Amino acid sequence: MLGGARSGKSRHAQAIAEACAGERVFVATAQAFDGEMAERIALHQRDRDASWRTIEEPVDLPGVIAAVAGGGRVLLVDCLTLWLSNLLLAEADLDAASDALVDAIQRAEANIVFVSNEVGFGIVPDNALARRFRDAAGRLNQRVAAACDVVELVVAGLPLRIKG
Amino acid sequence: MLGGARSGKSRHAQAIAEACAGERVFVATAQAFDGEMAERIALHQRDRDASWRTIEEPVDLPGVIAAVAGGGRVLLVDCLTLWLSNLLLAEADLDAASDALVDAIQRAEANIVFVSNEVGFGIVPDNALARRFRDAAGRLNQRVAAACDVVELVVAGLPLRIKG
Amino acid sequence: MLGGARSGKSRHAQAIAEACAGERVFVATAQAFDGEMAERIALHQRDRDASWRTIEEPVDLPGVIAAVAGGGRVLLVDCLTLWLSNLLLAEADLDAASDALVDAIQRAEANIVFVSNEVGFGIVPDNALARRFRDAAGRLNQRVAAACDVVELVVAGLPLRIKG
Repeated sequence: MLGGARSGKSRHAQAIAEACAGERVFVATAQAFDGEMAERIALHQRDRDASWRTIEEPVDLPGVIAAVAGGGRVLLVDCLTLWLSNLLLAEADLDAASDALVDAIQRAEANIVFVSNEVGFGIVPDNALARRFRDAAGRLNQRVAAACDVVELVVAGLPLRIKG
Repeated sequence: MLGGARSGKSRHAQAIAEACAGERVFVATAQAFDGEMAERIALHQRDRDASWRTIEEPVDLPGVIAAVAGGGRVLLVDCLTLWLSNLLLAEADLDAASDALVDAIQRAEANIVFVSNEVGFGIVPDNALARRFRDAAGRLNQRVAAACDVVELVVAGLPLRIKG
Repeated sequence: MLGGARSGKSRHAQAIAEACAGERVFVATAQAFDGEMAERIALHQRDRDASWRTIEEPVDLPGVIAAVAGGGRVLLVDCLTLWLSNLLLAEADLDAASDALVDAIQRAEANIVFVSNEVGFGIVPDNALARRFRDAAGRLNQRVAAACDVVELVVAGLPLRIKG
């Protein structure tokens, strides 16, 4: 589930996940550093009912998936872009983390719905860190899209199927 | 009609509107604050012939639609993103304005073609106002897309149907 | 072949070009101003084997196409956005250059695959030069898309056909 900011991708991803049978696990990668982010997290939480178990994991997403993605479950991971941002802040090895994520996806028996931002359609950012982030986000989206069966781009709340 | 900057969305929207029968009304939300914007407005005007009546309304778009969207007319509204920008500058209530717009769309008997920018596919902007604008634009696009029968994303002058 | 940053568009374009019969000519518009750009160029070069002849031409792209786009060849031009950037730096006449490019495309007997960036889906850039670049890139993409038989938007490595 790829989309721009405020494209409705989280809501659409949740609807898809809720259409799957199985115990619902929400994997939140967001960290509430400031009031703005805390508000966004709270807004998203209000959209989910008590049928969802929430796991907060900003960094070890592959480990969480490996631990909980057993059969009979559906996972909603929101979102890969914040996970990547957390990895960059932690100065983690991005290639190793991507490898581990793809490996966890391939071993998972649960249905997993990933939410990610498409961030590469603007002009080249002024600063090198933003360019590095944008490049890494593009590469990560490519790798995860290749590992998933279905990929959709959400525009104005409307899904556009690009794979599957 | 969603599209990026200089994607050809205004031209494509005009072609769709001109394919509809009815009296043509162009609703311009742009305000010529500076020479750059004045030039853009003049460029778009040159593309429309005398069959178009033009109404300039930077803020009360729902009121204009309610007033002129009777049967036998076709409206081209260019564009929602500038309208939103004007609302933000006027410190208007964005939710109330969105509600009023959706209400006006649902009551309209005329065919209405909206032009709007997709602005959420770049990296997260540095400043809070730009983030607020981007979020509001995404939410507005979602609401209007939900209220319209047909939605297209214009890329390089080429329309991609995403609804209808 | 349109796509965002790190969308996989260059790789996809190369795969399409290599599926065409004919002598392979890679037309590189990049100039290695700094280490970052030199690294990107080297990365892309490593992806091409010895079957490719490379021509580096930052500015006179229409001239190169006119010279080498004979029958029995396939050209991969990577990318139009850097070419445009070079034209702006050289203070060239953008309209004349676009006209010359479209003319060269129409006369070409070779299959030509163009790579270009979609840069208009972010918020309006702060500075006037970035806005000018974004507008010019949008117009160029529209003109080239109109002149080509097939246009694809690449998202997360996945092509979405928008023309042809």
